[in-house]
Amino acid sequence: MSKPLILVVNDDGVTAPGIKALVEAVKDLGDVIVVAPDSPQSGMGHAITINKPLRIDKLKLFGEIPTYQCSGTPADCVKIAVDKILHRKPDLCVSGINHGSNSSINIIYSGTMSAAMEAALEGIPAVGFSLLNYRMDADFSACISIAKQICQEIIAKGIPTSTLLNVNIPDLKESEIKGKKVCRQAVAKWEEEYMERQDPFGRNYYWLTGKFVNHDQGEDTDEWALANGYVSIVPVQFDLTAHFALSYLNERWTL
Amino acid sequence: MSKPLILVVNDDGVTAPGIKALVEAVKDLGDVIVVAPDSPQSGMGHAITINKPLRIDKLKLFGEIPTYQCSGTPADCVKIAVDKILHRKPDLCVSGINHGSNSSINIIYSGTMSAAMEAALEGIPAVGFSLLNYRMDADFSACISIAKQICQEIIAKGIPTSTLLNVNIPDLKESEIKGKKVCRQAVAKWEEEYMERQDPFGRNYYWLTGKFVNHDQGEDTDEWALANGYVSIVPVQFDLTAHFALSYLNERWTL
Repeated sequence: MSKPLILVVNDDGVTAPGIKALVEAVKDLGDVIVVAPDSPQSGMGHAITINKPLRIDKLKLFGEIPTYQCSGTPADCVKIAVDKILHRKPDLCVSGINHGSNSSINIIYSGTMSAAMEAALEGIPAVGFSLLNYRMDADFSACISIAKQICQEIIAKGIPTSTLLNVNIPDLKESEIKGKKVCRQAVAKWEEEYMERQDPFGRNYYWLTGKFVNHDQGEDTDEWALANGYVSIVPVQFDLTAHFALSYLNERWTL
Repeated sequence: MSKPLILVVNDDGVTAPGIKALVEAVKDLGDVIVVAPDSPQSGMGHAITINKPLRIDKLKLFGEIPTYQCSGTPADCVKIAVDKILHRKPDLCVSGINHGSNSSINIIYSGTMSAAMEAALEGIPAVGFSLLNYRMDADFSACISIAKQICQEIIAKGIPTSTLLNVNIPDLKESEIKGKKVCRQAVAKWEEEYMERQDPFGRNYYWLTGKFVNHDQGEDTDEWALANGYVSIVPVQFDLTAHFALSYLNERWTL
């Protein structure tokens, strides 16, 4: 049996420590190839590059592992990897490890998860990993074995079709992590404020700041798991239809 | 009773013909304010601007209607409109009218829909409108009355909490449009190919091209409605949890 082909992507860029940890996690599980953005792409959501061309360059970054940087977004990296670099579907796509949380509503802003979702759209089993630590010098050592275990489960047992996994890892030592939990996305949101400043020419400009607020008391959510020392695993879908709302509209609205 | 406050946003930029049509559609339904990107943002997905500041400028574009351009993404426009321009939640957020389809899987790449989703996250009833015609000289005349009717229904009857609406309009004369249908998102995808070219210095670059393929034979989908001359209305949610997959993982996986 041939070894699985594993595509590694991220959104913090090919030089981020998080992707190095992810390469370490999967390097013994199959034939690994890295295609990642040439610069940080945090907060890019599911952006794709339509109106300008992309560039790809081969790098020597991770020993013998073929590694490419791409001028596009995380989703672009997956598209161009499949079409122009691999010329076939990989058996697994892993994205990350993101520097910072992609739990609950953060998923919709996440370049890390958009890369995994793009792979899932192509029918590739896919998972995004995030560590709850934004710092560039974060300690990814616990993440490496956790990501490896989860990838082994995906390879051995699969995930349901038309889904992908959103894995968030608490910022704890491996010995302090209590386990892994399959969760639903918590009902949480950002409460934003823009900080207003003036440039030297008297014009205003605005910096996005905000605090994350969890409105969900459920113990089956990703926020609960992470707050209680567990790795959260949320299965994610890309059918965004609010099926419960179909009858509401059909019954009340005049169409 | 005070008039509803209506926020108009888009992703094609404040000067696009589509937003002018949308202003026309809602101008008699309440107090209207426009906050839109200062340049086209197609394919931006749910991108937000984190690592640089935003600028906003007031323009005179739509008569007496207060109009601002913002240097950010569609989602940024909604955030900054609520926090810095309106200082309160609007009663309705309308996004578009997009030049081109946002039906089925296109929603995940859509800046138009990300603006509507950002509003929905803030608890604002929200809807994105798209016309199935990419050209800048598209005829939006049918869209104006359709968008107006739908906004009147939203104001009068509401939409379920934690949902927003994705409305796509076929590129037909108003007399040719058969009606409106509440639909689910079709199972469809893009089959991409990158066209490879060489720059004058012998380096390759790649243009994204592709064709849209509908794999869904259902007659309850947005693709079916649009192909058969109906306006499609898909209720959309931002809980991305694949609830059906929770038990699959809990039963089969070793956690």
